[in-house]
Amino acid sequence: MKRILILGGCGMVGQKLARQLEKVGLPDGESFELTLHDIVPPREGATDHGQRRYRVGNLAIAAEGAALAAERFDLIYALASVVSGEAEQDFDKGWQTNLWPMWHFLEALRAQHRATGGAYVPRAIFTSSIAVFGGPYPDKITDDFLQSPQTSYGAQKAACELLIQDFSRKGFIDGMSLRLPTICVRPGKPNLAASSFFSGIIREPLNGVEAILPVADTVRHWHASPRSAAAFLVHAAGLNSEVLQGRRALNLPGLSCTVSEQIEALRDAVGNDVVALIKPQLDSDIVKIVDGWPRDFAPERAMALGFGAETSFRDIIDVYIADDLPLA
Amino acid sequence: MKRILILGGCGMVGQKLARQLEKVGLPDGESFELTLHDIVPPREGATDHGQRRYRVGNLAIAAEGAALAAERFDLIYALASVVSGEAEQDFDKGWQTNLWPMWHFLEALRAQHRATGGAYVPRAIFTSSIAVFGGPYPDKITDDFLQSPQTSYGAQKAACELLIQDFSRKGFIDGMSLRLPTICVRPGKPNLAASSFFSGIIREPLNGVEAILPVADTVRHWHASPRSAAAFLVHAAGLNSEVLQGRRALNLPGLSCTVSEQIEALRDAVGNDVVALIKPQLDSDIVKIVDGWPRDFAPERAMALGFGAETSFRDIIDVYIADDLPLA
Repeated sequence: MKRILILGGCGMVGQKLARQLEKVGLPDGESFELTLHDIVPPREGATDHGQRRYRVGNLAIAAEGAALAAERFDLIYALASVVSGEAEQDFDKGWQTNLWPMWHFLEALRAQHRATGGAYVPRAIFTSSIAVFGGPYPDKITDDFLQSPQTSYGAQKAACELLIQDFSRKGFIDGMSLRLPTICVRPGKPNLAASSFFSGIIREPLNGVEAILPVADTVRHWHASPRSAAAFLVHAAGLNSEVLQGRRALNLPGLSCTVSEQIEALRDAVGNDVVALIKPQLDSDIVKIVDGWPRDFAPERAMALGFGAETSFRDIIDVYIADDLPLA
Repeated sequence: MKRILILGGCGMVGQKLARQLEKVGLPDGESFELTLHDIVPPREGATDHGQRRYRVGNLAIAAEGAALAAERFDLIYALASVVSGEAEQDFDKGWQTNLWPMWHFLEALRAQHRATGGAYVPRAIFTSSIAVFGGPYPDKITDDFLQSPQTSYGAQKAACELLIQDFSRKGFIDGMSLRLPTICVRPGKPNLAASSFFSGIIREPLNGVEAILPVADTVRHWHASPRSAAAFLVHAAGLNSEVLQGRRALNLPGLSCTVSEQIEALRDAVGNDVVALIKPQLDSDIVKIVDGWPRDFAPERAMALGFGAETSFRDIIDVYIADDLPLA
């Protein structure tokens, strides 16, 4: 029985991951129990059931990380994070949430490693982001392109990757960082991520609500669905990290498309009336942020390791309709 | 009158930098006073003189960084560091010396920035290292090659670069990270850096002492003299950081050569008898570490910005003979 911890388990990706694990199981077929940890309580009606239990706590308090580490989970997903827009607005909160708790938690895991004479080496999978990159970019970002974040969020993710790489190299943990594409279509409400509109212009119209498009429709970006994100995280659990050959951060597959292609895919799926709910209204702050973002990748290592994502934006829309629209 | 602080001012590079500044002045010709801060006291006989004063303190104590920040130096050189070999042997000491004091010091500088209503934005020049890279490498490492450190020292340097980039992007400081080549020929005693032998095989024979060569003479590496290191640091002070276009870490020029080429340059300079003092004796630990190191670079950005270094190893030997041999 494998014991799995999901930090940030009540967030959108955490919930998708938990459901995916319960649906398809671990790659090695082993049975497991899930602990979903978050700073916010589970949403109303969500209670412990089957092999799933919830736990509320604040990882910014070092004692909370130490208490979790002391339970010696076999597999830890580290998804908890302040999102990009919030980390940019609140410098202190960003660093205090996105970097230091990772350090304290890794140190707590290392203490357990020592306490077991080196026997305890947890698998740790961290959700990093394409925000670790900064322009100017080549047409396609290759696997050996430098990290040069242009947001605090990106800097915090890149710094966590360095910690995870070094703690892993030393054998204290067995870690891996997955640089997720922008997750699209996000279900639920808009969030403070500057990328929120990429989902909003699809999700709001599909729910009969107007959506603001704050950038030009020529903007190109890199997407994967929530279903792909959950699949990435499950797939990563089945990899032997030897295959990473010391480079423990991976650019993941996604779909590169323009906003215009997003809109045409929406028209193709549900027609003109829905598309008419998208209202262009330039926001120079968002234009400036998005202008610094990656547009396309050649994620060869991840593809060779069996990671895969959608190949058309229509597929991404269909995933939203199938998985989330009835719940919206 | 510009006020300059050198953290790690009693180290080899700090001392070379201080002398270079006193000799050639700042690029803009402004007058200055120098504060050399270090955890170790200045060596016997070194006392405050002219515009130079010494100060002893431990930056790992946050209050020390805060006290220094409160003096609002105009230009800060951050050279203080535990070296690579020691950071690898003592994981705690490495991270507690090479990363956390940087965070606390940057936070203290930011507090001064706030206290002055944003007027105080110190220039900060950090000595990073080619240890931020990890293999496999291309024939020449280009300016957009990823950071993937394979030592704790490299991870700590790369993490500091991220902090400096983000504090600079936010306008709290005006920072820059210089990824120094291996400094060769280092004067004085061998240190705990795994790269120490690159200097040792030249320095020890020139001083009539045997030197162990722990790797094959086919090993290729990336060097610059202490004189070049000091010149890099002075030159950087004269650059407007706008020219960095948001990528505030720079690969610096150096000389790529093999150990065999080092030895032939030594023979060329001083003859066979001196070369005979080099004793090959493989050390598998050092072989393994050095095998993961960069061998050659194409540092185009730094060269376009006017940084320059030696172009032959014979030049590097001549610099040692001219600057340091009489003092050894």
